[in-house]
Amino acid sequence: MQLTRHTDYALRVLMYLALEPERVATISDIATAYDISRNHLVKVVHELGGHGFIKTFRGKGGGMQLARDAGSIVVGDVVRRMEGNLEIVNCTGPRCAILPGCLLKGVLYEARDAFLATLDTYTLQDLLHQRQQRLSGLLQVK
Amino acid sequence: MQLTRHTDYALRVLMYLALEPERVATISDIATAYDISRNHLVKVVHELGGHGFIKTFRGKGGGMQLARDAGSIVVGDVVRRMEGNLEIVNCTGPRCAILPGCLLKGVLYEARDAFLATLDTYTLQDLLHQRQQRLSGLLQVK
Repeated sequence: MQLTRHTDYALRVLMYLALEPERVATISDIATAYDISRNHLVKVVHELGGHGFIKTFRGKGGGMQLARDAGSIVVGDVVRRMEGNLEIVNCTGPRCAILPGCLLKGVLYEARDAFLATLDTYTLQDLLHQRQQRLSGLLQVK
Repeated sequence: MQLTRHTDYALRVLMYLALEPERVATISDIATAYDISRNHLVKVVHELGGHGFIKTFRGKGGGMQLARDAGSIVVGDVVRRMEGNLEIVNCTGPRCAILPGCLLKGVLYEARDAFLATLDTYTLQDLLHQRQQRLSGLLQVK
């Protein structure tokens, strides 16, 4: 039960860009920072651009930035768009004999929706500052 | 974002056995019914036995039955035990550079827990009869 590496890397790219939103970062910057495959990042970045999460600039001095404020990028949206296949089990390849009367599928989809609904309560900004906010909150209480 | 085939097949085996709890079913029965690999089912059945979900009988007339009432087998328990790896992303192979300060991991675990909590509200029995119960409920309302 894992997200694809594609989605994992997409979230890492967005977190990297969100740390310094004004800076134009390159794929090499991000590949080096995380020590991950540049080739795989090329596809991830292309798709993140296609979904409007980032904007890319070609040529010398080119690279990428977040396309919008980190507080408006919802983690659940990123996972839904990047993950591609949101089917929890494969009922059709080969086709499962009980498919027409199966209640398990609906239960698994309900669980998946609870998973995504949790991710919908967090933005990219929350991934950066939430700990700071929590600590601030704790110190005020005390 | 899929459960492993191992977990998928485990749930199918349990649903099969729950339909006729008195009958001793064989791996061949189940492999034929679902048109899936007998070899893979051998491992699944072995593990289901180890976790106490089913009891197995050797020799002529051997096979398997549910070890307990379908109403006491919780879907979330089956998924937790069969799935093995419940990490939503792989932060350590290779080790992610931001691991010590990463807030994403906690968010993903919270979402995974919401997924499992949903599955904890269903038993194997619910997968068989819930539709019937729902229909009965609907007809009484009308």
